[in-house]
Amino acid sequence: MLSYEMTHRVAYYETDVMGYVHHSNYVRYFEIARTEMMRAAGFTYAELEASGVMMPIIEVHSRYYQPAKYDDLLTFRATVKELQGVRLTIEYEVLNEIGTLLCSGSTTLAFIDAATRRPCRAPEDFVSRILGVVTPTITISKTTFMQ
Amino acid sequence: MLSYEMTHRVAYYETDVMGYVHHSNYVRYFEIARTEMMRAAGFTYAELEASGVMMPIIEVHSRYYQPAKYDDLLTFRATVKELQGVRLTIEYEVLNEIGTLLCSGSTTLAFIDAATRRPCRAPEDFVSRILGVVTPTITISKTTFMQ
Amino acid sequence: MLSYEMTHRVAYYETDVMGYVHHSNYVRYFEIARTEMMRAAGFTYAELEASGVMMPIIEVHSRYYQPAKYDDLLTFRATVKELQGVRLTIEYEVLNEIGTLLCSGSTTLAFIDAATRRPCRAPEDFVSRILGVVTPTITISKTTFMQ
Amino acid sequence: MLSYEMTHRVAYYETDVMGYVHHSNYVRYFEIARTEMMRAAGFTYAELEASGVMMPIIEVHSRYYQPAKYDDLLTFRATVKELQGVRLTIEYEVLNEIGTLLCSGSTTLAFIDAATRRPCRAPEDFVSRILGVVTPTITISKTTFMQ
Repeated sequence: MLSYEMTHRVAYYETDVMGYVHHSNYVRYFEIARTEMMRAAGFTYAELEASGVMMPIIEVHSRYYQPAKYDDLLTFRATVKELQGVRLTIEYEVLNEIGTLLCSGSTTLAFIDAATRRPCRAPEDFVSRILGVVTPTITISKTTFMQ
Repeated sequence: MLSYEMTHRVAYYETDVMGYVHHSNYVRYFEIARTEMMRAAGFTYAELEASGVMMPIIEVHSRYYQPAKYDDLLTFRATVKELQGVRLTIEYEVLNEIGTLLCSGSTTLAFIDAATRRPCRAPEDFVSRILGVVTPTITISKTTFMQ
Repeated sequence: MLSYEMTHRVAYYETDVMGYVHHSNYVRYFEIARTEMMRAAGFTYAELEASGVMMPIIEVHSRYYQPAKYDDLLTFRATVKELQGVRLTIEYEVLNEIGTLLCSGSTTLAFIDAATRRPCRAPEDFVSRILGVVTPTITISKTTFMQ
Repeated sequence: MLSYEMTHRVAYYETDVMGYVHHSNYVRYFEIARTEMMRAAGFTYAELEASGVMMPIIEVHSRYYQPAKYDDLLTFRATVKELQGVRLTIEYEVLNEIGTLLCSGSTTLAFIDAATRRPCRAPEDFVSRILGVVTPTITISKTTFMQ
């Protein structure tokens, strides 16, 4: 399955008065990670939408183990878990600079037709790339966003 | 001119590690205040967009005097300042529970045609209400959002 | 168990290009709902933190059924599910104006000592109120935020 | 004066139903740009706070010319404008991939003592670096965040 890793520098506006990254932002981190995984696999989410297919979220799960702090350089890991019918499940891990696992989670997305907003099949080329048939079991590493 | 006042309870996710409301959120507060002012005047922004007119922001200015903290009950004041051609300027004040002025600001918005995305005239009924011709120089007070 | 219901008007900045409320905002809605549930029960989260106890999130789960749109008047329902040791689980539902269930979810929070950042017992008065011993099985309804 | 340039990929959660980046996010972009400018100059904002000095925002101004869309690769430019007493003014430009200026703006920040929350002098080393005395009139270019 497709796997991807990238880094992200915690912004000030992502923190809260507790002194840590607000937990809602990890859900946004998951989105950034899967978006970049798709780009790395050669089929951006923007292209998918342009082709008339959207992927709304139908389920999110996240567990928090340790907090992230302002200016921490986080690592996001995304891995495609399964494609079942019109549903795609992706798993995530967020680690800090010394490799401590801060958060793990998963999201399930559905393929829908942008015009009708009804479930639809994913484009075949997209599926091949996401399932790693075109680029089998690759791990792409990229250091990004203010390293 | 139309004027409006409402309250807002500071959410945890609006704060940052400094212990205060992050300054970017005041720009969002301005948006909430003008949206509710329009609703109170009898012409919601949602109706405006449904009629084919959008109001993108073309200028924001804000000054910060004192910080707001988590769970503070803020007062937002919005006042229509002027309508010049396709541009509408609105002014804002944000105060805390003891009446201290925390932030003041202004936004200028343009009327554009949603289809062409070109500047356009504002609907007459909307203008009458915003300029207070239909409901002249009213001040509507409303206590809202978790008082 | 304690239960609570409130309303929230969807802000423009909570939407995304898909035309709906971005899924990450529901996690923030859960936070608003439990904060207001605590306030209604007579023990605010701000008071809890002032007493030296914090409640970081350790788990979030949410399922999305139907999208919310700009300016929708949403209903948030929060219900205390269980208090097990230092962990408190709360369940949520988000509905639109015609009563359609848009999202359901749960959060688990831990009680920690603000100074040591180690798990700690919840204050007894807080527990009594949250578990509905002081105010047994109440349902408090409150219409808020720009109704 | 110190100047800095970086890139940023627009995230889905930064867009709104109008189809563009929500205007409040540019204020957050300004923050990212000045933070990275400081890092490039050799004195991070995190180090400044650790040394007991905070820099709250006291003024923001921004003008919007053209919208940014989902997945656009934006360029952020930050330039130190002036340091007057305890106030530091920084100017910004945000451009899209074909060089169109989308937004320009400025922020004024104050140096305050983190303990007393009163205005204070900026650390000398910080000032030298920010004013470009240590590293005179440099322009650092860095491509970041999911290029």
